[in-house]
Amino acid sequence: MPATSWVPIAEDDPFGAHTLPYGVFSTDGEDPRVGVAIGSFVLDLAPLAAVENLDGAHVFAERRLNPFMTLGPQAWAAVRGWLIELVRDEAQRDLVEPHLVPMADIRLHMPFDVGDYVDFYSSQYHAQNVGKIFRPDSPGLPAAWRQLPIGYHGRAGTVVVSGTDIVRPSGLRSVGDAIEFGPSLRLDIEAEVGFVVGVPSELGSSVPVSAFADHVFGVVLVNDWSARDIQAFEYVPLGPFLGKSFATSVSPWVVPLAALHDARVAPPVRDPEPAPYLRDDEPWGLALELEVSWNGTVVARPPFATMYWTAAQQLAHLTANGASLRCGDLYASGTVSGPERDQRGSFLELCWNGAEPVRLADGNVRSYLEDGDEVTISATAPGPDGARVQLGAVTGRITPA
Amino acid sequence: MPATSWVPIAEDDPFGAHTLPYGVFSTDGEDPRVGVAIGSFVLDLAPLAAVENLDGAHVFAERRLNPFMTLGPQAWAAVRGWLIELVRDEAQRDLVEPHLVPMADIRLHMPFDVGDYVDFYSSQYHAQNVGKIFRPDSPGLPAAWRQLPIGYHGRAGTVVVSGTDIVRPSGLRSVGDAIEFGPSLRLDIEAEVGFVVGVPSELGSSVPVSAFADHVFGVVLVNDWSARDIQAFEYVPLGPFLGKSFATSVSPWVVPLAALHDARVAPPVRDPEPAPYLRDDEPWGLALELEVSWNGTVVARPPFATMYWTAAQQLAHLTANGASLRCGDLYASGTVSGPERDQRGSFLELCWNGAEPVRLADGNVRSYLEDGDEVTISATAPGPDGARVQLGAVTGRITPA
Repeated sequence: MPATSWVPIAEDDPFGAHTLPYGVFSTDGEDPRVGVAIGSFVLDLAPLAAVENLDGAHVFAERRLNPFMTLGPQAWAAVRGWLIELVRDEAQRDLVEPHLVPMADIRLHMPFDVGDYVDFYSSQYHAQNVGKIFRPDSPGLPAAWRQLPIGYHGRAGTVVVSGTDIVRPSGLRSVGDAIEFGPSLRLDIEAEVGFVVGVPSELGSSVPVSAFADHVFGVVLVNDWSARDIQAFEYVPLGPFLGKSFATSVSPWVVPLAALHDARVAPPVRDPEPAPYLRDDEPWGLALELEVSWNGTVVARPPFATMYWTAAQQLAHLTANGASLRCGDLYASGTVSGPERDQRGSFLELCWNGAEPVRLADGNVRSYLEDGDEVTISATAPGPDGARVQLGAVTGRITPA
Repeated sequence: MPATSWVPIAEDDPFGAHTLPYGVFSTDGEDPRVGVAIGSFVLDLAPLAAVENLDGAHVFAERRLNPFMTLGPQAWAAVRGWLIELVRDEAQRDLVEPHLVPMADIRLHMPFDVGDYVDFYSSQYHAQNVGKIFRPDSPGLPAAWRQLPIGYHGRAGTVVVSGTDIVRPSGLRSVGDAIEFGPSLRLDIEAEVGFVVGVPSELGSSVPVSAFADHVFGVVLVNDWSARDIQAFEYVPLGPFLGKSFATSVSPWVVPLAALHDARVAPPVRDPEPAPYLRDDEPWGLALELEVSWNGTVVARPPFATMYWTAAQQLAHLTANGASLRCGDLYASGTVSGPERDQRGSFLELCWNGAEPVRLADGNVRSYLEDGDEVTISATAPGPDGARVQLGAVTGRITPA
């Protein structure tokens, strides 16, 4: 990885030289196409790859990352090697510079077409907190929680790119003794990390834990917006539905797995030992550090390294029954919450379902989202030589029902 | 609708002259394209529409129905009117006959690209039976069941066309006192009716009950294969996941809503009265009669008219929170079960979780599916002048894990 680059990079630029994430952007009057972020620029890959006669250069002229993602890990590594050379080697400057577009001049699009969207529930602190709040008479964790990564399918068609306004959802919920239809009164966030599948798998086959990096292209940050009152009313026995399906926001820049090489850590000890199909000899714990900002006030810093089940185990689980993968499948970690109050990745937990509101820097007090509120989830990871790798951010603003 | 057609139609042909369902077929060495079934033939629409200079004829040369389905109800009605004319008017015979392909000569494909797949739970008899079997200490129906159509998202990427073999899924489940990973020991079916969305809706808007026919193109039969042991182990609190996601089969012929005109009936009385967004002044109960055949023995005849929530209410519900629709979204009714034993649409209910096995015509006794078993779900509906409208069939055979 480049320690430096000839591309000018300022301290507060969204990305340094280590991330090199992929996104889809457009400039005025031109079609969306693939770009790579560095400093405060987007590298316009399609014309550059064409000039360089890169194999399969056409994938960068597409409106989504899927055609590139489906090429697989060898192609991903080759392109990343080429990019590193381009941004590190001063001799490439004359070639590359004409294709650096200032971020101020572009619009970002949904980076990939989502196949299926799955949401896991793999933070023990989150699952315990939710259990205490919603099911005070039940044991802290559901019976199967330590046996397998509990998950469910969400709505792929309402995954939206960061910056998309979130209309407050309506639904049936209990208000006092009545059951009423109306706008959610307990609108919440869930700070998560999402994994994007590039390489499909066959129906009737399974992807072992060890094949994680053969299928998963990269990582996005996810805000799995949740209407707690609608969810609480509807979720027995088939799980969340309208409480979640109105919108899920993802960051516009997909960070390749290769950029997270220095972030790999051992996950927490699993007890009991997982079933063979979930055992991980080379585990994929990731020391990502998330930050949740509410109207500009940082309210939580959830530590991803505390997640009980890793993304490699989640992938093995979701295919253990023979379910196939498609390019563009997205699965999210579940809300990331650490053991401390200021590490909780949902407002349900942070404000304990309204019992412990937070005061924001502007003086306002909050337990749930109000119209006009804006939430940004960002993250960084350990990089080479003590540097940090930026993972970007996902942001969204609540508009009235 | 044509009472008769010049196309030869035999008593046991899969479709008469009233259904005119759409599918995607191919012949040796040619690309898949759109066809319409009548008698034992497929009408090859693309060349016929081209000869006739039909507006938008190119949609019939596509590999999926989506481009046609997204055109909306006016186009659907115009094309159906044209088809009725073609098959009824003897004068059209010379034009049409060259484009009738014997069904024996074709291969059928997945008829549409699935956007999101949602599965409802709208038979009161099914929900009560499942409650009694799985949660004997709880009330018969979940608390919210009569307030809203309970549903959840399934896996769109594993929706397969009828005839696709179903590999027995594996997963964690309780065996005696142990928790073990292995092939499902309680593999089941769910006989359902699926509704296919043609016309999308905007994020942040809702589709009222009254706009059902503006969005829904047609109907397929669905077998929502279910591994009861895997499902029972995993489903608290987020709902079914691996117990369902390995495969869902759909019939290859999509029956347009217009073909079900004579099947509309009043649904059961709803008590309590539904919330305003679920009220239906012109209800969409449908008197479809399903038939479940297990290795050639008819074991159940589930009556769709008994469903508590209609497809129009389900669509209004799934968009009530502002979730958008995409062309190709598929939502299924939930298992169709009537009040009688031989009307139950799952083997879990029919054989009461193994307590009451059935004997098939070949002398074999069954409670759940064994390797090599084949299940076919077919259906008919009331048609014009006392005729029956055939809805086709969905079939699948279990192969070993």
